[in-house]
Amino acid sequence: MSIREDAIELHKKHQGKLAVTSKVPLASKRDLSLAYTPGVAEPCKEIKMNKDLSFEYTCRGNMVAVVSDGTRVLGLGDIGPEAAMPVMEGKSVLFKVFGDVDAVPICLDTKDPDKIIETVRLLQPTFAGINLEDLSSPKCYDIEDALKAQMDIPVFHDDQHGTAIAALSAVINALRLVKKDLTNAKIIVNGAGAAGTAIARLIVNAGAKNVIVVDINGALYEGLTGLNRIQEQLTKVTNPQKQQGNLCDMAQGADVIIGVSAPGAFTKEIIGNMNSDAIVIAMANPEPEISYAEAKAAGAKVAGTGRSDAPNQVNNVMVFPGVFRGAIDVRARQINEEMKIAAAYAIADLIPQNELREDYVVPDAFDSRVSPAVAAAVARVAMQTGVARVQVDPEQIREKTAARINLGR
Amino acid sequence: MSIREDAIELHKKHQGKLAVTSKVPLASKRDLSLAYTPGVAEPCKEIKMNKDLSFEYTCRGNMVAVVSDGTRVLGLGDIGPEAAMPVMEGKSVLFKVFGDVDAVPICLDTKDPDKIIETVRLLQPTFAGINLEDLSSPKCYDIEDALKAQMDIPVFHDDQHGTAIAALSAVINALRLVKKDLTNAKIIVNGAGAAGTAIARLIVNAGAKNVIVVDINGALYEGLTGLNRIQEQLTKVTNPQKQQGNLCDMAQGADVIIGVSAPGAFTKEIIGNMNSDAIVIAMANPEPEISYAEAKAAGAKVAGTGRSDAPNQVNNVMVFPGVFRGAIDVRARQINEEMKIAAAYAIADLIPQNELREDYVVPDAFDSRVSPAVAAAVARVAMQTGVARVQVDPEQIREKTAARINLGR
Repeated sequence: MSIREDAIELHKKHQGKLAVTSKVPLASKRDLSLAYTPGVAEPCKEIKMNKDLSFEYTCRGNMVAVVSDGTRVLGLGDIGPEAAMPVMEGKSVLFKVFGDVDAVPICLDTKDPDKIIETVRLLQPTFAGINLEDLSSPKCYDIEDALKAQMDIPVFHDDQHGTAIAALSAVINALRLVKKDLTNAKIIVNGAGAAGTAIARLIVNAGAKNVIVVDINGALYEGLTGLNRIQEQLTKVTNPQKQQGNLCDMAQGADVIIGVSAPGAFTKEIIGNMNSDAIVIAMANPEPEISYAEAKAAGAKVAGTGRSDAPNQVNNVMVFPGVFRGAIDVRARQINEEMKIAAAYAIADLIPQNELREDYVVPDAFDSRVSPAVAAAVARVAMQTGVARVQVDPEQIREKTAARINLGR
Repeated sequence: MSIREDAIELHKKHQGKLAVTSKVPLASKRDLSLAYTPGVAEPCKEIKMNKDLSFEYTCRGNMVAVVSDGTRVLGLGDIGPEAAMPVMEGKSVLFKVFGDVDAVPICLDTKDPDKIIETVRLLQPTFAGINLEDLSSPKCYDIEDALKAQMDIPVFHDDQHGTAIAALSAVINALRLVKKDLTNAKIIVNGAGAAGTAIARLIVNAGAKNVIVVDINGALYEGLTGLNRIQEQLTKVTNPQKQQGNLCDMAQGADVIIGVSAPGAFTKEIIGNMNSDAIVIAMANPEPEISYAEAKAAGAKVAGTGRSDAPNQVNNVMVFPGVFRGAIDVRARQINEEMKIAAAYAIADLIPQNELREDYVVPDAFDSRVSPAVAAAVARVAMQTGVARVQVDPEQIREKTAARINLGR
């Protein structure tokens, strides 16, 4: 059968993909009296005195909401909250399998940013973190910013930051392979939506001095009109020479080109324009800007895509389970840029220099070292940057995460 | 150890009681491509064309939100949403164990009825039903009424209706035992809050003609001032002779007295005032209005309490798992009075007349026939009253529910 038929069959078979389960026995009246009345009153009373105990005594401590309004789902666009459920539910089970995070889909029946903000804010007592997903741009920026300001738990728009961390980890290793330096590399990001702007910002924050963001109208530069506030901010730290021109012009001499745009956006000519040892990360999904094979044929030294059927799959599943695992294990108040950069290096560092190859700059999606390494790094930097509310040895987090997850079995 | 220490230990041990699990394999890239991208796009596209498919293709079809603002939790009062989590989480695992319903706690950081209504309404695409819990009275009425009017999935305030169904089932069987008729029995409900008003209304709707609601100031009667709108409505169908007086006065000649009030509210004198074959259902929790032993000693023929350590435990756990199981299996738009009455009779009918005894008018909480019987009855009446969106043979629902749940093991 085709993927299409198999996927429908899979989703119908069990009425979706996610279920709830009890972690405690409920086989006797005694069990009932501990998990429910009258015993349950005891943790209630303690939490009333100290709200933070809700993270220790209830599922809240391991629960993340995967929130969407269904306005920008995969490549399907604005399909509505009901139709977004399979994606949010899928994401939730990936959280579980790859990070032992108990995530639940929350699809909201509104597109109004203010209502989304208010609703998510009111959900705070139930969750340890909020994963925003598939919200249209530019409202996704306002929603995330408002929630970060108003909430005391991590809020993470995965389409931005998960994608950015995955891209940065691939870029780090590809540059290591070709022995170029991130600081001076010329890096083009094609696409100025949520993912593109987040990638550019994270790469700049990681130290790159020569990043240029390009959209369908050409390079973004300071002073260009018609930009949204995030794009405008970005022009202040990218494109230092205020270059103007289209993607093909900008690719001239580029060391790295990253696509979060559309199938076919990277031509042979564009890649031909790049510097020697060209690195091409084509992340459009499910069809990349150029296929792995075509990128290589066009002269790329290293290529990566979002696809599982080619080498160097650059995929968020390496990122979000470990990022939240680490953040909630130290009860982080937020996920800051330093934590994101640490996550990218944790992924990259899993492949030692002497194991790096053109077709292996990114760990396999099922490499069971990834989430534990990301969790440990994120937790360590959360503590270092003062956003952690509890202190835990990162090595212990790594080991515990490795023991909790159960990949490929 | 004490219940207190054991309960805290249980809640700490696993960081609460509820977890999420995947119903589908995620052990290979193929699995990933079906449960997540690119395969997941297929159910998304189908649901976009027909939203109702979200009940079939996603966990939504079996998911219920257990919603609270923490303003009236157990006997603890307004302890806040964080402190309410252990109760909502406990309720959620009971939904799972007793009804195979995937329930998740949703504790909201607001006490404002309008915000609660708006938030729950916006959650609709994620859930098949809403269980409201531990909301203070009288706002609980407004919240439920508004949500029922605005939502197309069942909304059920369990403190009202679960309690009412449990009480009615006990009353039905106790009256059968003493060979009295519901229609003519004098039934006193002590307590005019959410539970008391719901019990009185359901018993009236089930056919009782002589019900009197009493609160701390005495009997409620038509024309009495200072009542909320629900109490006022209730005076039109209760206390037909507009009797005035306190509980002890009203108990004169009563056949049934039901307490949802406070420990100690039922004295020996009150029970002594009742008709022969007195039935005393004392549901205050965890300490009843009178203990089982004291009620019997005071002359009650049949007594019941909310406690698991005495006979005739009148407990919502007999009710809500089966009610939602049946309602969501036929995709009911609401849970109406007819469905509630059917649920009460389904519970009562599990004990045949010749098995009824003074100390056995209520099935055991772990009687595995209860939820299947309730689910079948609720589904049948949902179809009969036109609120079901799909037609399923109730006997099939009974059998499937019995196979899904796993009590006492």
